[in-house]
Amino acid sequence: MTKRPIPYKIYLSEDEMPRQWYNVRADMPEKHPPMLNPVTKKPATKEELEQVFCKAVAEQELNDTDRYIPIPDDIIAFYKMYRPSPMVRAYCLEKALGTPAEIYYKFEGNNTSGSHKLNSAAAQAYYAKQEGLTSLTTETGAGQWGTALSMACAFYGLNLTVYMVKVSAEQKPHRREVMRTYGAKVIPSPSDTTETGRKILAAHPGTGGSLGCAISEAVEVALKTPNCRYGLGSVLDHVALHQSVIGMESKMALDKYGVKPDIIIGCAGGGSNLAGLIAPFMGEKLRGENDYRFIAVEPASCPSLTRGSYMYDFGDTGHITPLMKMYTLGSEFMPSPNHAGGLRYHGMSAILSKLYDDKYLEAVSVEQTSVFEAAEQFARTEGILPAPESSHAIRVAIDEALKCKDTGEKKVILFGLTGTGYFDLTAYKKYNDGEMSDYIPTDEEIAASLQGLQQLQP
Amino acid sequence: MTKRPIPYKIYLSEDEMPRQWYNVRADMPEKHPPMLNPVTKKPATKEELEQVFCKAVAEQELNDTDRYIPIPDDIIAFYKMYRPSPMVRAYCLEKALGTPAEIYYKFEGNNTSGSHKLNSAAAQAYYAKQEGLTSLTTETGAGQWGTALSMACAFYGLNLTVYMVKVSAEQKPHRREVMRTYGAKVIPSPSDTTETGRKILAAHPGTGGSLGCAISEAVEVALKTPNCRYGLGSVLDHVALHQSVIGMESKMALDKYGVKPDIIIGCAGGGSNLAGLIAPFMGEKLRGENDYRFIAVEPASCPSLTRGSYMYDFGDTGHITPLMKMYTLGSEFMPSPNHAGGLRYHGMSAILSKLYDDKYLEAVSVEQTSVFEAAEQFARTEGILPAPESSHAIRVAIDEALKCKDTGEKKVILFGLTGTGYFDLTAYKKYNDGEMSDYIPTDEEIAASLQGLQQLQP
Repeated sequence: MTKRPIPYKIYLSEDEMPRQWYNVRADMPEKHPPMLNPVTKKPATKEELEQVFCKAVAEQELNDTDRYIPIPDDIIAFYKMYRPSPMVRAYCLEKALGTPAEIYYKFEGNNTSGSHKLNSAAAQAYYAKQEGLTSLTTETGAGQWGTALSMACAFYGLNLTVYMVKVSAEQKPHRREVMRTYGAKVIPSPSDTTETGRKILAAHPGTGGSLGCAISEAVEVALKTPNCRYGLGSVLDHVALHQSVIGMESKMALDKYGVKPDIIIGCAGGGSNLAGLIAPFMGEKLRGENDYRFIAVEPASCPSLTRGSYMYDFGDTGHITPLMKMYTLGSEFMPSPNHAGGLRYHGMSAILSKLYDDKYLEAVSVEQTSVFEAAEQFARTEGILPAPESSHAIRVAIDEALKCKDTGEKKVILFGLTGTGYFDLTAYKKYNDGEMSDYIPTDEEIAASLQGLQQLQP
Repeated sequence: MTKRPIPYKIYLSEDEMPRQWYNVRADMPEKHPPMLNPVTKKPATKEELEQVFCKAVAEQELNDTDRYIPIPDDIIAFYKMYRPSPMVRAYCLEKALGTPAEIYYKFEGNNTSGSHKLNSAAAQAYYAKQEGLTSLTTETGAGQWGTALSMACAFYGLNLTVYMVKVSAEQKPHRREVMRTYGAKVIPSPSDTTETGRKILAAHPGTGGSLGCAISEAVEVALKTPNCRYGLGSVLDHVALHQSVIGMESKMALDKYGVKPDIIIGCAGGGSNLAGLIAPFMGEKLRGENDYRFIAVEPASCPSLTRGSYMYDFGDTGHITPLMKMYTLGSEFMPSPNHAGGLRYHGMSAILSKLYDDKYLEAVSVEQTSVFEAAEQFARTEGILPAPESSHAIRVAIDEALKCKDTGEKKVILFGLTGTGYFDLTAYKKYNDGEMSDYIPTDEEIAASLQGLQQLQP
């Protein structure tokens, strides 16, 4: 096969868009342990999940056997508003680094939600509409998921209430305004609109909130409201499934030019973007067809894979979700307030946790000043202002490319550029003003927040 | 020719990207009157322009004979970072409106500057670098041009000082931060760093500044600094030339699918985006090869085409630029502070002014609450949060599509979606909170700011 010159951006045509999501669990030699009902410690049933989630979503959440799941035509039509997303060859960054490595990134930020989150939001809102629901609730931290679900709900004509982590709502009033423009009701969390919120406010009056707490509030409201369900933007298996569209497009785009990545890198908070990006490549590795290095990059201030424990834990602070076996820092863990951006979740996708535990996936943690250095270099050379979350992946991609410079190796590096940083300029200002610092939790802090997990194990 | 199904987004391949800019002036049966030196009232010479601008730019500014001007390879490489930009078929908006019209938009917002401004910034920074300059100065209002030139200067390794209209710098601290991330020095204008600035501050101590004033400051600094020139983001003919890439790509994309627009709509502040979008279509009209309706949309609060006079006027408030014959509200005109977004320039591109005066181009003005209504509808259906400026074009595109609904006509409407509104959420908040109002200047106000223009005429 003659290698054609590779353009700056590889776009698939709309006809080439994937028509199926890829379910990596079908190819996992060992499945991850099931979600458990926290009271009975028995596997959560479809019926239990359907109280919180749409039926289709509950079904997908439990499906670990079907390798491919068709994407409904309506969702394909929604995807066409902003997909296929470009696969970019980072020619300018390569040149600036002077590396022999080839660097590619799949850019998911070219939509108003500013990130990949829309891939699952579109699906969740569609199913809710199909099932005759009238509203959804959710939570949002950095704001990308809330914006994405607002967009999808506006499109399908559903009401949406978003519990937004209070500190984030205060730091990012503009994020809130985008959601309002899409018709969503945005409530800073903890709030006095829920029992969980009132309890947390009573115990910690000045708290800035957390994702775990906002999840509790949103779930509580979904359970109490007729024709309403809850939508989650990360962590769960059905979200990873929807995000597999990223990886499928990526693989198709690279295959077109005969490019095989050696290293695939993604940032990991709850894990949905990384799980989606690596999905079909991981499938090949699991089936023994091809080998790749996969690297999950997490913030040193919230290091669930690199410093957490692989145990059953709640998904939320209020302890109303099922238990998941995952790498966790404990549901009480709160990242330092100096931490910028998302990736502040205490746990990690059960799929990624299992793959990591089984050594299919590596993980590294990076400190935020070095992340913003990479972000600045990337912005100046590639012309895109990256989200702080995505910049974790950029940091490690640059590091790997610089290793190639030392060794002369021409590795092919692919990373996920999950989103843009237009709503993160408070953090950029801190960096520009030289006022950004790093924080690494002590072993004692982590041990403290892991306390009590033992009693949750089955 | 069988009509192929039209995708949601038409992307050209990088190979198909235009290799030349189209200079509409070459096809104008009557050229617009030349820029004049305000002292001698004689046509500005290349030598005079070269004191302020790069040589290549000064040459392009005066070139009204060459129909095509080659785009240097280096600029093509820069363009590939974010171009070709998509031509989008607004299927979802059409459906929401229930119109038989076909609506297309050329989307220029998929880059970090958030607008089409990068097309000229790339060229101006490239020429500056080529000519051995070390720095540029410029002004910015809404912030898109300043961001664009910051990005281009970072790429080519030039220093940049941006005079940012003070009220805008205060309302949009995040815009400022993006520019800083790209290494630019941002100074709120009027400032005490220039004579003009000090004079204006003395006369109007509490002023929020204006674009005309920021231009004066930036030009003054460029004139005084060695190896430094000034870059302007709109109004001038070389900017319109660079922006012709928008129209060339648009025409090529539509031609691919055998689509001929009936109406082409763009917002108009200084006029660069509109001039660029319509360029090749206008060329056909001027040469008698094809007919199109062209509509310039301006804010009712700053209505230079619809309520200004076609006269010689200064380009800036400080009166240090050459005189241009253009539709103007007078260089002293200040749009009401309730006006959101850009499009607040007192004058209009000399090319567009002449085409309008010669009836090749129509103009309408629209009020901002109706503009934000259109913006919201567009955001919810097409999934892109538009810039307030671009939303002027959306307003009129929707109006024309609704007329088609009444008449049953299947017109083809093309409009320019120049940018995204991620940095305009203060204005969106006003709209969401029901606190946005309209302001239309009185005839007396306009007459007052036009006073004194008579003496500038040659």
